[in-house]
Amino acid sequence: MAKPAVLIGVDWGTSAFRAFLLDAEGGVLDRRAGSHGILTVTDGDFGRVLSSQVGDWLKARAVPILMSGMIGSRQGWIEAPYVPCPGGLADLAGGLVTVSLARTPIHVVPGMEVSSPSMRDVMRGEETQVFGALTTLGGADGGRFLLPGTHSKWVRVSGGRIMSFSTYMTGEIYAACRDHTILGRLMQDGESEAAFARGVSDGARPGTPGALLHRLFGARTAGLFGEIPGSDLPDYLSGLLIGAEVFDAGLNDDTAVHIIASEALARRYRAAAAKLGLTTAVLDPDCVAAGHLAIARAARLLPM
Amino acid sequence: MAKPAVLIGVDWGTSAFRAFLLDAEGGVLDRRAGSHGILTVTDGDFGRVLSSQVGDWLKARAVPILMSGMIGSRQGWIEAPYVPCPGGLADLAGGLVTVSLARTPIHVVPGMEVSSPSMRDVMRGEETQVFGALTTLGGADGGRFLLPGTHSKWVRVSGGRIMSFSTYMTGEIYAACRDHTILGRLMQDGESEAAFARGVSDGARPGTPGALLHRLFGARTAGLFGEIPGSDLPDYLSGLLIGAEVFDAGLNDDTAVHIIASEALARRYRAAAAKLGLTTAVLDPDCVAAGHLAIARAARLLPM
Repeated sequence: MAKPAVLIGVDWGTSAFRAFLLDAEGGVLDRRAGSHGILTVTDGDFGRVLSSQVGDWLKARAVPILMSGMIGSRQGWIEAPYVPCPGGLADLAGGLVTVSLARTPIHVVPGMEVSSPSMRDVMRGEETQVFGALTTLGGADGGRFLLPGTHSKWVRVSGGRIMSFSTYMTGEIYAACRDHTILGRLMQDGESEAAFARGVSDGARPGTPGALLHRLFGARTAGLFGEIPGSDLPDYLSGLLIGAEVFDAGLNDDTAVHIIASEALARRYRAAAAKLGLTTAVLDPDCVAAGHLAIARAARLLPM
Repeated sequence: MAKPAVLIGVDWGTSAFRAFLLDAEGGVLDRRAGSHGILTVTDGDFGRVLSSQVGDWLKARAVPILMSGMIGSRQGWIEAPYVPCPGGLADLAGGLVTVSLARTPIHVVPGMEVSSPSMRDVMRGEETQVFGALTTLGGADGGRFLLPGTHSKWVRVSGGRIMSFSTYMTGEIYAACRDHTILGRLMQDGESEAAFARGVSDGARPGTPGALLHRLFGARTAGLFGEIPGSDLPDYLSGLLIGAEVFDAGLNDDTAVHIIASEALARRYRAAAAKLGLTTAVLDPDCVAAGHLAIARAARLLPM
């Protein structure tokens, strides 16, 4: 007999929507996923979209809903102010902001912020994935986590609290360079592990931050002189940027890095990390559901 | 009485066209400038454009034409293969490629290339500006030169030869970030010297190349938290990138840097360099005409 549902966890980002119907053990009874990211909800009627996705689950049994991601940003349903680092499950639970859909309470997880003397950094949604990953790893209370993508996040956890994190605009700079600079001119569609590896080597050399502005031009000249074929240039550029990122973020200690990412993206980062001597393990992004359950439990939203 | 014309020098780049009617002393008897960059000559009829610009000069007196810049690239009139570093006036003169317009010979200056173990670098047009600058500086045979812009060039000259140079994609990355990433979202039109200076400080700190991918995100969070107003963000981002460039390229020695640039762009780089303790002087880009004359003389194109 199936265990009863106790929570609906929703990871609602800029471009994607994922919902999980969860039992008290974190088992996923049902799931929904689509491209209804918050940017697609142009009329601001997030309730309508949510109903269309999970309304049937609610009809069967009224359970609370916990949402993480950009849905809690100024551009989302309601803004949930950032919780500062270091912060753990209790801090996220204490920062929940609540709206309602018909008579169902909807709890929105806050993002997190961290300040260094030179800059602030923020995330929304990744904190829930990280706490889910800790559960998935058998209740670990520390480690290093990497959530690669448009804005890669490197997150450090200790004693059950997120101590600090750093964002790298790697994916977005890749796309901007490819589509909107001279680097894209000689590029053709194609894939090449060798070109990616060469890019990692070139990107992961020592230098100062400005050297990146110089090395990027190397993706132009290597194409110009026919040293790298046009169809290999996209992966060379990808390697150059990911190599620079992993070299900067990854090599300050030798703790293993848990990569939370889809298989294709994780493979890319694993290859770069391995080339640089870093140990990695990969976790499925669906671990976010375990994070929803852990936060809901910390907020006493579930039956005891 | 005006001295007779001996040469027409043309600096024909991607987006701009500048021509100078020169006497044997390098005096500019007349000049033409416009936005007829090679990208605007979609039918490839460069001769027609050149005639429309300098035809009247040729009617008055037949003199050779020397052209530098992207007109000598694969996308230009005729490709003039790159001359390797180190290279001086004699090398450029030896690499001239010739076409003709009616019966006027047109000599095209080659670009230059330099190879390091990790990447190749190229320039076209800047070499002629640098040799013009040396003349303008009273016949100097060495120094450091900076030609900022979409693709900033840092050029080192010794013993009358260009020894090496480095390209930084600073201007193009700025535009791509502003117009095609999340960094542009909070930006409004505006200028702020203070925000530029703060950007320079943040960009010119030590770190590895990948740190730039992290620091760029600071232009987002500073806007998000209202630490930098939207109208100051463009100059903050500009300072961040220029600071990183100058820190990487400029601080390896304390030789003064000659900046060849328009006044507005030169002011920006001077401010960044001064903040980092670097001595600079500014030269007008029209010094390129003196470079045309020097190369023409080295190629024995002028009456002795």
